[in-house]
Amino acid sequence: MPVNLPLPQAEHLKPVAGVELGWAEAGIRKANRKDVLVVRVAEGSTVAGVFTSNRFCAAPVQVCREHLTAGKGIRALVVNTGNANAGTGEPGLANARAACDALAAQLGIAPEQVLPFSTGVILEPLPVDRLVAGLPAAIANAKPDNWLAAAEAIMTTDTQPKAASRTVQIDGKTVTLSGISKGAGMIRPNMATMLGFIAMDAAVAQPVLQALVSHAADHSFNSITIDGDTSTNDSFVLIATGKSGAVVDRAEGPAFEALRDAVTALAQELAQMIVRDGEGATKLMTIRVEGGKDVAECRQIAYAVAHSPLVKTAFYASDPNLGRILAAVGYAGVDDLDVDRVNLWLDDVWVARDGGRNPDYREEDGQRVMKQAEITVRIALGRGQAEATVWTCDLSHDYVSINADYRS
Amino acid sequence: MPVNLPLPQAEHLKPVAGVELGWAEAGIRKANRKDVLVVRVAEGSTVAGVFTSNRFCAAPVQVCREHLTAGKGIRALVVNTGNANAGTGEPGLANARAACDALAAQLGIAPEQVLPFSTGVILEPLPVDRLVAGLPAAIANAKPDNWLAAAEAIMTTDTQPKAASRTVQIDGKTVTLSGISKGAGMIRPNMATMLGFIAMDAAVAQPVLQALVSHAADHSFNSITIDGDTSTNDSFVLIATGKSGAVVDRAEGPAFEALRDAVTALAQELAQMIVRDGEGATKLMTIRVEGGKDVAECRQIAYAVAHSPLVKTAFYASDPNLGRILAAVGYAGVDDLDVDRVNLWLDDVWVARDGGRNPDYREEDGQRVMKQAEITVRIALGRGQAEATVWTCDLSHDYVSINADYRS
Repeated sequence: MPVNLPLPQAEHLKPVAGVELGWAEAGIRKANRKDVLVVRVAEGSTVAGVFTSNRFCAAPVQVCREHLTAGKGIRALVVNTGNANAGTGEPGLANARAACDALAAQLGIAPEQVLPFSTGVILEPLPVDRLVAGLPAAIANAKPDNWLAAAEAIMTTDTQPKAASRTVQIDGKTVTLSGISKGAGMIRPNMATMLGFIAMDAAVAQPVLQALVSHAADHSFNSITIDGDTSTNDSFVLIATGKSGAVVDRAEGPAFEALRDAVTALAQELAQMIVRDGEGATKLMTIRVEGGKDVAECRQIAYAVAHSPLVKTAFYASDPNLGRILAAVGYAGVDDLDVDRVNLWLDDVWVARDGGRNPDYREEDGQRVMKQAEITVRIALGRGQAEATVWTCDLSHDYVSINADYRS
Repeated sequence: MPVNLPLPQAEHLKPVAGVELGWAEAGIRKANRKDVLVVRVAEGSTVAGVFTSNRFCAAPVQVCREHLTAGKGIRALVVNTGNANAGTGEPGLANARAACDALAAQLGIAPEQVLPFSTGVILEPLPVDRLVAGLPAAIANAKPDNWLAAAEAIMTTDTQPKAASRTVQIDGKTVTLSGISKGAGMIRPNMATMLGFIAMDAAVAQPVLQALVSHAADHSFNSITIDGDTSTNDSFVLIATGKSGAVVDRAEGPAFEALRDAVTALAQELAQMIVRDGEGATKLMTIRVEGGKDVAECRQIAYAVAHSPLVKTAFYASDPNLGRILAAVGYAGVDDLDVDRVNLWLDDVWVARDGGRNPDYREEDGQRVMKQAEITVRIALGRGQAEATVWTCDLSHDYVSINADYRS
């Protein structure tokens, strides 16, 4: 059961002028499930993305980078689930290109105007013929108000689709943003998450869009972890169609800031949905590290805590075995950390004070917070002004079941 | 059920002249279990240790370092389970010293001649009065052939005691080595393991002993991981009583090498026992990375694979979902890794060739190996001559159960 994650309602998801979404059941891995998504983007849109830092990056990620660099203007995205097309070598690259070629031919655009995405099992050949055979159906049912179906079409071990919308006023014009994401395991994005797409109808110059996507990724998809496993296929793409008439042509000023905050907030919402639906998750933990010398060391400590199986199982058990958090802070690799300045809070409960147990801490207060479904762990390092926040979930029996059974 | 780990038999554990071991049931955390160990060491012995690199190192670890530096000659060790005396600040230090003081008074030695060790829950005050009250019983039953009882007295979540012995010929004299270890969770030693003790009756000069303990730790306790959590209390201590008449007074030459190999082999055996008895373990995996530029990057990749929850759950399920191994190699942080040169074997089965699936790989071959209780994962990087080996276990339902319940 995901953590406080209501099913998205189709009527709450706003069409974005210039974007149409269509899906197909192509039988990539299993029959009778949506597993192909085609996103059509109006001519003149700008598109920017960030991708996995995994050295074994998947074939579609390599093709995405090529096509974004080609600069011909992106007009379509094609996504398949059921197979990651990663660890597949030259044949994998050829398959990713074949998917782009087929979609381009049917839409009357150039192959370089298509971005391909894949998610699923690694090290197995992509059945690209099935993917291609599914494209006509996906093109035929593409329409602007298909965001919920699009979110369903990119699910793998997700228990429910992830989608959200919002609007922001830019220079008196209403800009609409809608986005979808997927991912529930192999989640410790290190450029972006498994798959995240946000479209908006502002007109945004390409370098400004790149600044937006990087900022949003750093504060959302790049700040979540479920199991510490950075995927081979992480991709986060931002699309700006310009159809609202609002124009953002430089990476500063009030219009840029308003749009940046809206994109970042939507990306955070989508990223947190991934954690709420993390494989086997029963709790959402916000790990906030403050008082660091720089953001890097705050993130380093936050991730050490977020990745500790002992911390994660204690939260699963609602057991305030909080020394495990201090142990993770201690082994995070900040070599000159003075532990006597470290303080720890669980929500409002002051647990550790100046490196030791707070004399006023009572076990029942820790117990009370640990029973909640959403918990903030706040760690103050007492050595500077930097801070960072990471979101994660607990480690439960269901995580083991899901990952011991996935593929079978 | 531990992985191929027979119960040690008391008659196979050899007394080491100059060492006596005694235990008590002191009720540190629970009644009616051995939870205090006293090791008496003959005058003139040399003792060396390596300890955790966790910044939140426990109070007894700090006192061990002080007492080893004091240079008065170590004459006794005192170990308690049930409480780690970590994250306990100044009162914790005072408690560790009080335990040394009490034991020293009863044995007629100086407090600086005692090394204290604790293992158990972090962030809770050590009930040192109970520990002290248990000392007379432990002193009274101390004897040379108590190695099995000693191994039992330091267990926490271990399902069985860990102890082993061997002998080695040095200059025509028989040197006897016996050792014990404990630990089953919070295991990713980064100087040494949770607790490991080896005693031998060679005479070894102090700097030579330090070289021995470091070499042995690097190739044993510092090369295992269960959950990636580096403990606050890791300690590995090597004791040389000299009673055999064999003398090793320099860190080179055939005598040194023979003793180094014997100590390292025994330490490896004890370290692997910890992995075999890892919390919830059903499989022992040997992760061997070769062809690296240096040992550090080989270890970095081996640990990334060994810590991946997705890799560990796949092994638990005996599912050859081996793309997960490549994904972990890819995100391990070796930025200039050329994935097209990476090869992967599972025991004798060649799975990935030049960065992609080996065309000759058959799923049933992978399946056959995955069903074994002991599996070697061999990863060739194709960029140098360095190599490293790490031992780990799988991630099972029982790991979650044990760590969600520990303390309760």
